Amino acid sequence: MAHDVVSQGKPAFLFDLDGTLIDSVYQHVLAWREALQELNIELSTWRIHRRVGMSDGLILTALQRETGRKLTKDEIERLKKLHNDAFLKKVDQVRPLPGAKELLQLLTKQSVPWAICTSGTASRAKESVKSLQAGDDVILVTREDAGHGKPFPDLFLAGAERLNVDINDCIVVGDSVWDLLASRRAHALGVGLLAGGYGMDELVQAGAYRVYEDPVELTRHIDELGVQASV
Amino acid sequence: MAHDVVSQGKPAFLFDLDGTLIDSVYQHVLAWREALQELNIELSTWRIHRRVGMSDGLILTALQRETGRKLTKDEIERLKKLHNDAFLKKVDQVRPLPGAKELLQLLTKQSVPWAICTSGTASRAKESVKSLQAGDDVILVTREDAGHGKPFPDLFLAGAERLNVDINDCIVVGDSVWDLLASRRAHALGVGLLAGGYGMDELVQAGAYRVYEDPVELTRHIDELGVQASV
Repeated sequence: MAHDVVSQGKPAFLFDLDGTLIDSVYQHVLAWREALQELNIELSTWRIHRRVGMSDGLILTALQRETGRKLTKDEIERLKKLHNDAFLKKVDQVRPLPGAKELLQLLTKQSVPWAICTSGTASRAKESVKSLQAGDDVILVTREDAGHGKPFPDLFLAGAERLNVDINDCIVVGDSVWDLLASRRAHALGVGLLAGGYGMDELVQAGAYRVYEDPVELTRHIDELGVQASV
Repeated sequence: MAHDVVSQGKPAFLFDLDGTLIDSVYQHVLAWREALQELNIELSTWRIHRRVGMSDGLILTALQRETGRKLTKDEIERLKKLHNDAFLKKVDQVRPLPGAKELLQLLTKQSVPWAICTSGTASRAKESVKSLQAGDDVILVTREDAGHGKPFPDLFLAGAERLNVDINDCIVVGDSVWDLLASRRAHALGVGLLAGGYGMDELVQAGAYRVYEDPVELTRHIDELGVQASV
């Protein structure tokens, strides 16, 4: 793999999407809550919150363990569809997180390579990415591009490959424990954001190198991540 | 104040409602998000989440500080109404948290005095309390009964008075930092629950004596709180 990026002293960034660049976690949480309720599955909302960020399939595997109820293949497909439909009804509330657009612009300006790696599907992710106004050639890795969703490392490994950088030189930025666990399994450095509603301790315990509130605060401290920019 | 309760070795319990006994925090969060958006006030959802549990008035004071936008009296009244309307549209998703009904039943059976002390209004709270099926004579302290909402200690002090117990013998149970700060200002013992979506560290740092996941886990450990019951 090419190491020229590192030789310039600039790392590469692999961003999670929901809760990291886009303020959409809480809408996903209540969309899952509605979907589960439709099938009479009662699961506390905070427990759903702590699962969002995994792939839909892994969320449902975890929820089956927590509720003790085994789902059929048909029920799983129905839940995914119900969640998607419920989310689409809330999507007009969804906005980029403060500082997300500016952070991506800064990295592009500084020639720091970056990509977006999400457990979501391509169709859902493309709309969100458009709202970030980062141009038409954003490198976007979605659920369809990787064998397994987070906390498997596959999405971030695929992101590094698309950027043609060594995963060891990558900084993974995510709001959930699953991003950070995936970053450790990929041997990348993980940075946590509070913008998805996790507590600081959960992110630190999952191995975060640093934790910031949101893209605004990350940008203010970007020198801690090896990017030399006058912000 | 009467100390006979303590002489039996049984403390009294003062419960928060939303996020502690009732699974309603996330609906409140998105209801505030919708209300603010209606007035073109952009505030990240996780920051709203961290404010829920205060009185509506204190939430709006804090939000003004965070957004840097001063609200008129009319705007504040409009936001409160918009929040209430948006919440009512989601209220059919709201359920008691797992173990909440059983915990209250257990305390009643053991003659441990308990009350519910919420920053919410009486009209909203009464519906939630009904779903807990704890009988018609639940002692309920609401926003109307206290000079200030949490994190002021007023609601919990009023709860202790209604129970005719010393506040020093009370255990305050809540999901938010504001419950725990209020409990310390009241000189009661505070117990945190993760069921409102805060992280463990936030509750511990706010002074929680113990932190449990939800009413189920609290009940399993109730001997740690001085209640001798075979659960």
